[in-house]
Amino acid sequence: MDQERLEHIRHSAAHMLAAAVLELYPRTKLGIGPTVENGFYYDFLFPQGTTVSEEDLASIETVMKKIISGHHDFVGRSVTAVEAESEEADQPFKLELIKEFAGEGKNLTIYESGPFKDLCRGGHVDNTSEIPADGLKLHRVAGAYWRGSEKNPMLTRIYGLLFATKEELDSYLEKLEEAKKRDHRKLGAELDLFTFSDLVGAGLALWTPKGTLLRNTLDDFVWQLRKERGYEKVTIPHITKKDLYETSGHWDKFKDDLFKITTREGHEFAMKPMNCPHHTQIFNHVSRSYRDLPQRYAETTMCYRDEQTGELHGLSRVRGFTQDDAHVFCRESQVKEEMFKIWDIIEAFYKAVGFNDLRVRLSLHDPAQFEKYLGTKEVWENTEKQLREMVAERGVEAFEALGEAAMYGPKIDFMAKDSIGREWQVATIQIDRNQPERFDLVCVNEQGEKERVVMVHAAIMGSIERFLSILIEHHAGAFPVWVSPVQVLLAPVSSKHVGGARALLNELTEAGIRTGIDEADETIGNKVRKAAGQKIPYIVVVGDKELGGEPWMIRVRGQKDQVKMTKEEFIEKVRNEIAGKI
Amino acid sequence: MDQERLEHIRHSAAHMLAAAVLELYPRTKLGIGPTVENGFYYDFLFPQGTTVSEEDLASIETVMKKIISGHHDFVGRSVTAVEAESEEADQPFKLELIKEFAGEGKNLTIYESGPFKDLCRGGHVDNTSEIPADGLKLHRVAGAYWRGSEKNPMLTRIYGLLFATKEELDSYLEKLEEAKKRDHRKLGAELDLFTFSDLVGAGLALWTPKGTLLRNTLDDFVWQLRKERGYEKVTIPHITKKDLYETSGHWDKFKDDLFKITTREGHEFAMKPMNCPHHTQIFNHVSRSYRDLPQRYAETTMCYRDEQTGELHGLSRVRGFTQDDAHVFCRESQVKEEMFKIWDIIEAFYKAVGFNDLRVRLSLHDPAQFEKYLGTKEVWENTEKQLREMVAERGVEAFEALGEAAMYGPKIDFMAKDSIGREWQVATIQIDRNQPERFDLVCVNEQGEKERVVMVHAAIMGSIERFLSILIEHHAGAFPVWVSPVQVLLAPVSSKHVGGARALLNELTEAGIRTGIDEADETIGNKVRKAAGQKIPYIVVVGDKELGGEPWMIRVRGQKDQVKMTKEEFIEKVRNEIAGKI
Repeated sequence: MDQERLEHIRHSAAHMLAAAVLELYPRTKLGIGPTVENGFYYDFLFPQGTTVSEEDLASIETVMKKIISGHHDFVGRSVTAVEAESEEADQPFKLELIKEFAGEGKNLTIYESGPFKDLCRGGHVDNTSEIPADGLKLHRVAGAYWRGSEKNPMLTRIYGLLFATKEELDSYLEKLEEAKKRDHRKLGAELDLFTFSDLVGAGLALWTPKGTLLRNTLDDFVWQLRKERGYEKVTIPHITKKDLYETSGHWDKFKDDLFKITTREGHEFAMKPMNCPHHTQIFNHVSRSYRDLPQRYAETTMCYRDEQTGELHGLSRVRGFTQDDAHVFCRESQVKEEMFKIWDIIEAFYKAVGFNDLRVRLSLHDPAQFEKYLGTKEVWENTEKQLREMVAERGVEAFEALGEAAMYGPKIDFMAKDSIGREWQVATIQIDRNQPERFDLVCVNEQGEKERVVMVHAAIMGSIERFLSILIEHHAGAFPVWVSPVQVLLAPVSSKHVGGARALLNELTEAGIRTGIDEADETIGNKVRKAAGQKIPYIVVVGDKELGGEPWMIRVRGQKDQVKMTKEEFIEKVRNEIAGKI
Repeated sequence: MDQERLEHIRHSAAHMLAAAVLELYPRTKLGIGPTVENGFYYDFLFPQGTTVSEEDLASIETVMKKIISGHHDFVGRSVTAVEAESEEADQPFKLELIKEFAGEGKNLTIYESGPFKDLCRGGHVDNTSEIPADGLKLHRVAGAYWRGSEKNPMLTRIYGLLFATKEELDSYLEKLEEAKKRDHRKLGAELDLFTFSDLVGAGLALWTPKGTLLRNTLDDFVWQLRKERGYEKVTIPHITKKDLYETSGHWDKFKDDLFKITTREGHEFAMKPMNCPHHTQIFNHVSRSYRDLPQRYAETTMCYRDEQTGELHGLSRVRGFTQDDAHVFCRESQVKEEMFKIWDIIEAFYKAVGFNDLRVRLSLHDPAQFEKYLGTKEVWENTEKQLREMVAERGVEAFEALGEAAMYGPKIDFMAKDSIGREWQVATIQIDRNQPERFDLVCVNEQGEKERVVMVHAAIMGSIERFLSILIEHHAGAFPVWVSPVQVLLAPVSSKHVGGARALLNELTEAGIRTGIDEADETIGNKVRKAAGQKIPYIVVVGDKELGGEPWMIRVRGQKDQVKMTKEEFIEKVRNEIAGKI
């Protein structure tokens, strides 16, 4: 089915939803009812005292399908503003729209379909029989301010899914169900990785010991890859005088997104929303010779943005996030080699965490909105040309996206597809010739002259919080062995095996394997179930046999049959998996 | 000489300073002139257009000594407020004091000594001849607001040193000179450890690669000691809703010292000045069984305090500082063992960084100012008793200090004496029974009942910034080998030895030795001088002999004679020093 027809079907269904709601709750006031991805919604102000929740959706859907089955034609007619106002006299939100549209000189139309009529500019099927009722499902209720402004009344938004066939609907629902099971907020609590506190506030994650181990394991690997390539760690504070951002240009373009502080002495400070301006101050605190370049600074550090409460979501959208950030200060002649080094790091890292094929996006400036960017057209075009050449030399296919560049330069972005088919932007490499101008960053070259340097920005995980939301959902919490906070769980059969199990714990820990022990006074069945729920890769039941030197029976995550192995073979196997990052 | 007599001498000298100033700058207005450690000061408002700086001190000192040599008696007499006002009619600051003292019903006295008289409550020598003029030196000028308030005029404060003998003065001046050479601000720049930026702001250090390596080396060692004792890392954001600090009690007692943020939505946030309240939220996010205790959380993280610009000083007093913080949540029965574990960590750490004998201070509450603290008298007294018992059991001598406790509980503080005799408070262990009450922190005990837990706070370095200011000055930048950012410097004799030196660099790096190479086109003499200035422990000149397999001649920091050693012996020696933390 073509997209336009699907739009018409979904739009028509929105009318039917309003019709059903009016039949069940006659004094309801109507907002608007557009189509959205996979379906449509309609906003309602229910009569005072009436609350509609997801439990009511089944009965609304039944009435809706009954109306659809009435085979009503959609009939439109032009009306004057006065006529429209008279027909919609008991619908205050419609009256507001009529006034506005009339003021803009728009033509007004009213569409009728059986028992229902609505102010609408059209785009329907001819007859309700064309709506595939078995591809329809009302599935969600949310609050939404009238016209998106918190100054207006809060309406109830009912979302419907609508596909051309029942098969498509079922397949979509299955995917939703799978995504729900994998929801990182749910798994984060079940695996005890992070939490939020009402006292600390929304969008500010607190990381438990297990979650911190997970973060640090990933970050240590990024650092290992960077260290091998000549990076050095630096350390900066989380605040700055606003002067830094006035120089960098961020104050002008991003002021509203900053957490701002007025000190007791009346100075204006801000929390850092990114690290590049601070890092320029380390580069620039002494004079640099061309011999000192590249300077490669890496720092995993938290950044802060004043996000609106309604936009926060688990770890995906937060107020405080951790960047595994790096900035290379180098000469023009060194840019390509540095970019390719970063590219190698990105490929090695994403392979190790289970994303094999990254799509590459060339994120360019939007020529139609050049005022959003810093610097000259010429620098932008040259830099973008250079990026295209690098992508070609690297021999990868890239797609171009206008308007996705950073404020100070174009980017190469990497997109990862997760195990349920969703694509996420993850790592990024950015060339920046604007900050070096603004901060006057130079080296002294072979001729004793000042030479402008180039900055290359690179984040591997980007925001660790957002990356973990993706990684948790990709693996449904069953991380690769090297990433798992607990790699092996020892479950002593009874209290008399606890001593032996503790000795094994020490032995495995010494061998570099993160090992846990469940000493609770419970059945083995319970211990195994709990450990499986924690998605621990290997479970070893420790009883007389295991302590007596006989081969172990290993319970392997995701495998039905246990695997027989000597202790030495098992330790060797797990060590190899950790070292091989699998 | 007893302390009281020294006080009288110093106080008398302050009068002489004022006398000399009035002789040189007749229309000067006088503030106050008390004694301080090692001497005295006097505050002056010089006539408009007159600036007095350190260059003028010699001539003031000459006049001062001339007046002292006049053998004037100090003669005091009681005066009424009216008399005093008439005598001090041209001294506005004195008039302000007269009014205030009279209002408080105090007796007023005026002391005369030769050409000078001053409103003063006494405490002088009988005759100026008793002032040991060769133990006197004016040495410093600073700005100071009248009565310490920035609403008042800024006065010029002249500091004088005064000792009983010339020998004592000289010895003190020598110590000052030594401290100046060791000044961490000077060494921090010379060794390229940290910097400050005008754009970022005062009190916010930026750490270079070398400085970050130094910080991380120390912090990694603290973590190693903690990990061996069952600590786990956690991660928290740097901000919070103010609700957290209202619950903890910090909002009430420390509000003025917080960096406060009002979000775009109008919520009140604060930057964290400490970590304990956040850590309670990790402990408290799930129900804890007694089996889960102790929970030992460690985190090295930055904290922020809104310090006044005038109080900032290098790394000693900053706006952003890094705490190597830890909190143990345990049962009453576990407190002592946990405290002793921390004590072990502190002893191991301070020995390894070159502080062998720590003095132990029991920091108790001040009964006269009980309103400064949280909690009940009974809890305080019991906790302090418990601390005394632990100190006794540990078999160390401790001294007690009233009023040095934390807001929430008493502390055991550790004091380190540096190589020029100054004593600094460094590590701390604190028992806290108040935060567990305020945040309702419990575990479920063997009987299935809720049991209040105890928090033990512990910082090993405390503020890493402040600790480094002490460590840099203690070692004058010549850190123990294991701490040094660069442990061995290779200096190739000429360009034809660079290749061989690079191979050695890799070999030493592989062996876990932090090695640098100086490839500059300079003489060996220059390279050795630069490396010595960088306080690098070992310098190896790499020429034909060294590359030809002959024994090396090692230049050892602080030793005149070079040491002959094979490459293998040298690597072994340095590795042992690193592993042995010396």
